[in-house]
Amino acid sequence: MAKKVIIVGGGFGGINAAKILARDEDVDVLVLDRRNHHLFQPLLYQVAMAGLSPAEIAFPIRSIFRRFPRVGVLMADVREVRPQENKLITDQGEFSYDYLVLACGSEHSYFGHNEWEDFAPGLKTLEQATEIRRRVLVAFERAEAERDKSTIAPWLTFVIVGGGPTGVELAGALGEITRFTLAQDFRHIDPSHTRVILIEAGPRILSAFPDELSERAERDLRSLGVETAVNTRVTSVNAEGVRTADRFIPAKTVIWAAGVKPSPLNAQLGSELDKAGRVVVDASLALPHFPNIFVVGDQAHVKDERGQPLPGLAPIAMQEGRFVGRQIRRDIDGREREKFSYWDKGTMATIGRKRAVAMIGRLRVSGFVAWLMWLLIHIYYLIGFRNRALVLWNWTYSYLTYRRGARLITERDWHLHQ
Amino acid sequence: MAKKVIIVGGGFGGINAAKILARDEDVDVLVLDRRNHHLFQPLLYQVAMAGLSPAEIAFPIRSIFRRFPRVGVLMADVREVRPQENKLITDQGEFSYDYLVLACGSEHSYFGHNEWEDFAPGLKTLEQATEIRRRVLVAFERAEAERDKSTIAPWLTFVIVGGGPTGVELAGALGEITRFTLAQDFRHIDPSHTRVILIEAGPRILSAFPDELSERAERDLRSLGVETAVNTRVTSVNAEGVRTADRFIPAKTVIWAAGVKPSPLNAQLGSELDKAGRVVVDASLALPHFPNIFVVGDQAHVKDERGQPLPGLAPIAMQEGRFVGRQIRRDIDGREREKFSYWDKGTMATIGRKRAVAMIGRLRVSGFVAWLMWLLIHIYYLIGFRNRALVLWNWTYSYLTYRRGARLITERDWHLHQ
Repeated sequence: MAKKVIIVGGGFGGINAAKILARDEDVDVLVLDRRNHHLFQPLLYQVAMAGLSPAEIAFPIRSIFRRFPRVGVLMADVREVRPQENKLITDQGEFSYDYLVLACGSEHSYFGHNEWEDFAPGLKTLEQATEIRRRVLVAFERAEAERDKSTIAPWLTFVIVGGGPTGVELAGALGEITRFTLAQDFRHIDPSHTRVILIEAGPRILSAFPDELSERAERDLRSLGVETAVNTRVTSVNAEGVRTADRFIPAKTVIWAAGVKPSPLNAQLGSELDKAGRVVVDASLALPHFPNIFVVGDQAHVKDERGQPLPGLAPIAMQEGRFVGRQIRRDIDGREREKFSYWDKGTMATIGRKRAVAMIGRLRVSGFVAWLMWLLIHIYYLIGFRNRALVLWNWTYSYLTYRRGARLITERDWHLHQ
Repeated sequence: MAKKVIIVGGGFGGINAAKILARDEDVDVLVLDRRNHHLFQPLLYQVAMAGLSPAEIAFPIRSIFRRFPRVGVLMADVREVRPQENKLITDQGEFSYDYLVLACGSEHSYFGHNEWEDFAPGLKTLEQATEIRRRVLVAFERAEAERDKSTIAPWLTFVIVGGGPTGVELAGALGEITRFTLAQDFRHIDPSHTRVILIEAGPRILSAFPDELSERAERDLRSLGVETAVNTRVTSVNAEGVRTADRFIPAKTVIWAAGVKPSPLNAQLGSELDKAGRVVVDASLALPHFPNIFVVGDQAHVKDERGQPLPGLAPIAMQEGRFVGRQIRRDIDGREREKFSYWDKGTMATIGRKRAVAMIGRLRVSGFVAWLMWLLIHIYYLIGFRNRALVLWNWTYSYLTYRRGARLITERDWHLHQ
């Protein structure tokens, strides 16, 4: 009898776990996701910045597994996990499993201020990306229409909250489009009047990187016109702008890149959670009391060799997913489980179109070389040849012309006419 | 003093009027549109059918005129026209004009049953196209999840109301994706169980074409699995399906391609309207009492040489737009206006990926040759080299592989997490 493996979440963790098991004759895999698509998260900021179209970084999960008849895919929202019964309750019915892999990722956390979300969307889904794109483009349209100098400023001020890789990448891209790309198309906007402000609560941006790379990133951002405000905590956000301890920044466009929290499913597992709400897993990434339940990616608390929890990054989720796939295989074969250890191939963040910072082991790289590395790695990992070529084409084009192809303002309500 | 020309609407009519005047030193053009993008309407059904991405058929109006400093572009919603005062009231303030070109297009008409719209979206905007795409893809997901045979049928039944070119193109594409493209990706759906039904109130589909081409189109549709129901009037639409005079068709996905009505601005002009609500214009496409106001495209009632009103088609709007641009030029130069006459280069409709019907003067073409003509003409007219190449690439790819790249289910609400 084939073993039933259910994987919840079609992100990097889930997809990679499923791929390891996809060819096995004695395993039936079912991938459940609320969405029909796998999202290449590291390039999502490019959709928000009108550089790429949603379809260039999102792929129907079904298509990824079309050649593997033993992998089923179902669009379903998991409502409840019942570890004692080996059962999942979803909006599409109940499912039993022999093995369960939870790879649900994380969502934005507003530190108890969910009311800020309306004014400062985060960047986790395609919808959020196109909403941010809409806001940025509308801000320029409004600034162009505005006659009164004093009311123009808030439309041309863009605040990004959170100085991690996502915040830095957004700020760099915003610095670029506001100075170069969009400026050419507008008649009344002086590009030197745009302000992009990156706010970070800690003492430096990119705190996961060494000091020197943080400094380099800040310098690179400055050259794109981005102001960085460190040691600055946001105390409130509303439709008019952002308040910090010592000032109010009038800004019509605010983007949240400050914090994440894991899936609410975690609370149902009856297992230990860390302060951030992540599930503390054993060395094989399973729950201590339910060894047939694995947790990977942003949802899991996995320690590195120094005892620190691994951050929520795509390569980590990918390695964890593949590892878990292999452990299920070993279980079925009656072999002992291994211990997970993350092989750090490096971390990087890009700043605009020709700069990046990267650390690979003890090596630190910055500037154009780091950016080229970033570009090649990201294109390599984009699943599916077609999209890789498309993305390369689009980037080459926007690199050479400073134009951006996906500058569409679309509305949320399809009822709107014309 | 430069003459001020305001063009309302960045569709085919408006863009072409603006292009004619864009280089003139003594004319200031302002293009107003509720949206920031020009939409290549004839390919919109491809977005609804997941074959193309929104950015491949939509272009920021600003970008189209970036090299013409005398053409301004503003995202604004026109609320009121005051012909006596030569003034427009918009949500972005008031504007005065010397010449006004109304090119606002049309929106869907539900013949007094606006409540049907929720259950049967039309296809005029990008948002509507992605909403239809969402519904079609979700229907397949639901059918895949459903265990009970009797409840599967409504998910796999797709009804298109309206047998004009849009309805036929949608039906052909739906026939194709339901039989070939999607079927490969699903494990439990039998593609022969999908039904695509095209409902037409009149005695035949494509009534603007000669009989023989209507018949050919119906035959071609049948070969793609599409049932055509002519002489069939829809009496109600709800969440469960479509009711006609003699039966109820259970269907979760209904698309409206049946009727259009022009902009509500028409009622404010104090000018004669036809039964369909279009403005009756003089031989120079201007209002009889206000010769400095022109109306073009779907919004205007323009007679052909046999006294019949011209239909709402892209090539007609383009010719009218260019004509009006030239008449404004002639007015300024003190020359007499010309009389508009439409040069009919032909009309065509495509049915799936290798068939079309076309009439060019007295010539009737159908089958693969007509489809190739259709393809070349549409790609040629797509504005901007880059997108033309991209679209060609995407089509070649889906033609060869039967895959569709843009199969994304995106939600309306960006607040949804994960």
